Amino acid sequence: MFDLLSACKNAKLASFDLLNLSEDQINQALVTCASLIRQNKSYLQTENQKDIEFARQKGLSEGFIDRLTLSDKVIEGVALGIEQVALLKSPKGKVLYEYQDDEQDILVKKTAVPFGVVGIIYESRPNVTADAFALCLKTFNAVILKGGSDSINSNIAMVKVLKQGLEKVKVNPNAVTLIEDTSRETTAKFMKMNEYVDLLIPRGGASLIKSAIENSTIPIIETGTGNCHVYVDEFADIEKAVKIIFNAKTQRYSVCNACESLVIHSKILSSALPRIASKLLEKKIIIRADERAKAVIGDYPYLENATDQDFYTEYGDAIISVKTVDGLSQAINHINIHSTKHSECIVTEKEQNATEFLTQIDSACVYHNASTRFSDGFQFGLGAEIGISTQKLHARGPMGLDALLTTKYIVTGNGSVRK
Amino acid sequence: MFDLLSACKNAKLASFDLLNLSEDQINQALVTCASLIRQNKSYLQTENQKDIEFARQKGLSEGFIDRLTLSDKVIEGVALGIEQVALLKSPKGKVLYEYQDDEQDILVKKTAVPFGVVGIIYESRPNVTADAFALCLKTFNAVILKGGSDSINSNIAMVKVLKQGLEKVKVNPNAVTLIEDTSRETTAKFMKMNEYVDLLIPRGGASLIKSAIENSTIPIIETGTGNCHVYVDEFADIEKAVKIIFNAKTQRYSVCNACESLVIHSKILSSALPRIASKLLEKKIIIRADERAKAVIGDYPYLENATDQDFYTEYGDAIISVKTVDGLSQAINHINIHSTKHSECIVTEKEQNATEFLTQIDSACVYHNASTRFSDGFQFGLGAEIGISTQKLHARGPMGLDALLTTKYIVTGNGSVRK
Repeated sequence: MFDLLSACKNAKLASFDLLNLSEDQINQALVTCASLIRQNKSYLQTENQKDIEFARQKGLSEGFIDRLTLSDKVIEGVALGIEQVALLKSPKGKVLYEYQDDEQDILVKKTAVPFGVVGIIYESRPNVTADAFALCLKTFNAVILKGGSDSINSNIAMVKVLKQGLEKVKVNPNAVTLIEDTSRETTAKFMKMNEYVDLLIPRGGASLIKSAIENSTIPIIETGTGNCHVYVDEFADIEKAVKIIFNAKTQRYSVCNACESLVIHSKILSSALPRIASKLLEKKIIIRADERAKAVIGDYPYLENATDQDFYTEYGDAIISVKTVDGLSQAINHINIHSTKHSECIVTEKEQNATEFLTQIDSACVYHNASTRFSDGFQFGLGAEIGISTQKLHARGPMGLDALLTTKYIVTGNGSVRK
Repeated sequence: MFDLLSACKNAKLASFDLLNLSEDQINQALVTCASLIRQNKSYLQTENQKDIEFARQKGLSEGFIDRLTLSDKVIEGVALGIEQVALLKSPKGKVLYEYQDDEQDILVKKTAVPFGVVGIIYESRPNVTADAFALCLKTFNAVILKGGSDSINSNIAMVKVLKQGLEKVKVNPNAVTLIEDTSRETTAKFMKMNEYVDLLIPRGGASLIKSAIENSTIPIIETGTGNCHVYVDEFADIEKAVKIIFNAKTQRYSVCNACESLVIHSKILSSALPRIASKLLEKKIIIRADERAKAVIGDYPYLENATDQDFYTEYGDAIISVKTVDGLSQAINHINIHSTKHSECIVTEKEQNATEFLTQIDSACVYHNASTRFSDGFQFGLGAEIGISTQKLHARGPMGLDALLTTKYIVTGNGSVRK
């Protein structure tokens, strides 16, 4: 039987062992794990097949099964991903602030250090198991993984292979731990393991995040829910608006940085909206519009009425809501009320309006004349991504490796005392 | 009757208004508030007197009443403190990261921005009311204050004066709000106002912090509990050890960065401990020692037995516990188990031992041959201090103005879309 308390204690001990390793040793461990994942492909796929069969018996959707499947391509991607993480420079040890007091003879250095133990709760995507492990190990953190119950066999197999990789290079294998008991009770207990777990990152849908906010006593970073808006201002370049909305809405539907709602100024409604709609028609996007917007594009074949609920909805699908406003401040207000504080864009040629929007919109990423689809660690040049934080504490927006580090003040003296 | 929901909503609206102000306007507001505090000294003291009388009737300690009292000196200190905050450079708007993608035509800037609304829960110290307000306003945040019930009249008066100051310079007076209903029920509701409050900082004793961790759904920063250790290593310079322990233990008893426990290597016990004890005797410090330490200083007049509970205790008083260990790793382990992760020191001349201690000790501030009393925003050159964080998320150790800021990714393009 899985013993949560022992698992957490052992992860904590492993986190102290990691502090004694060099970055070379960490990288060697990562490369070894990648190579073992390739070698154990058929084992991983056999175990994965069990999960796939259960999922089919339960009648889960093809999209779900697609995300669950460890195909040859996915396994190669996982191995390659770990190798790429090994190539990054770890931000651990970076001195972020320095202060010297000659009179009292102290030197203060604020230094980037690992959290210790990072907990990650996620849905049934076994590739995330290896991905999260690699990012945590690269930052010298031990990781405790709690994946979705529908991927349990795949996850057990994946973590077994990762532990073998660690053992092979003499790294404490408890640097990665899988919570094998996926019951609600165990998850609830896990979220209160403050003594052993330093940080909890829930990755997944809105209900998973909400449950973590309400139940966790461990500090958490909320990630990933995105009800993103594009606001087409009175002074917008309509051609830019069409390009941006088409890209942000239709490039991928299920991603958190996709545009879910178009907010449009009434003065530009009749000139801009028909052109935007005509472009969206190429992908048969359903438009859920308010009365004024409907009147302008009355002949659009996939037109529906927007309810207030629509403006709160992250569709993750080929649907967009349209809200008409009579001014910039009304647009800002509407967005701040309905957004999930992820990514929002203004399309305008008027600099003053752009500045007001970028200042007043209370979201992690704000855009002027660019698609919300850019909200991504790789697109922002971070080299990696653990998730996209929609909270304000510690990390906000796409999180790179440094989001997995905290700081420590290291003070050196010479028998120095405070006067 | 005090309406919590309206108060939180109005604070949120005020936080958006603050974003339209210049730093000069913020500074003018601060200076005006300081001047009004001086002008309203007798009003503040009359209201404060009501609290003092209630406190006396309740039989509260002289120490408590001392911290509650708005003497002439305290009021001048409060006004001066606000003026000093006005002189600091606000870190708002600082660009912390920049990335340009020429091919896709985007410029990404990670910028320091206010949280929005900061909640502060603290004990009955009316000077904190003005201090917390000033630091939040300087960083363009609205603040909601929940002070101890025993200082309610003082706090109402202080916030009334601050609001007058804001109104005088045409700043939205809801930038500062006092929760006038200090009942547990209202405090519990306040800690769940995620929609309007972006950050909660509990300042005070361990039970206040624990209650916030367990009940708040708003992200919090834990502050201030300090069970700090000084470890005297086998290779310590005994003279340095004596100086550091005397300073860290006796300079002030009630502060969170005072040394509460001495951990000492058995090999240096008989040569070092009598000298340390003889110095502590000057201040009649009670020593609660384990068996081996007791045997060495058997004739010390204020000697008691240490129980395991002592090693978990932040005395805040003229008491120190002594634990004997047989090696560095045992010392590190003892400290990591018993500390509150605030500030810990190693006294040693052996560089390798210092490095191991500084790396493996899991606390906000770690010291080599220097007193833990330096753990302080001003001592670390931060220019201000909101508190000392003992958590790892967002801010750790002494927090300056930048701990009151989050970040925002501001992305500009030219009709740019993701390929």
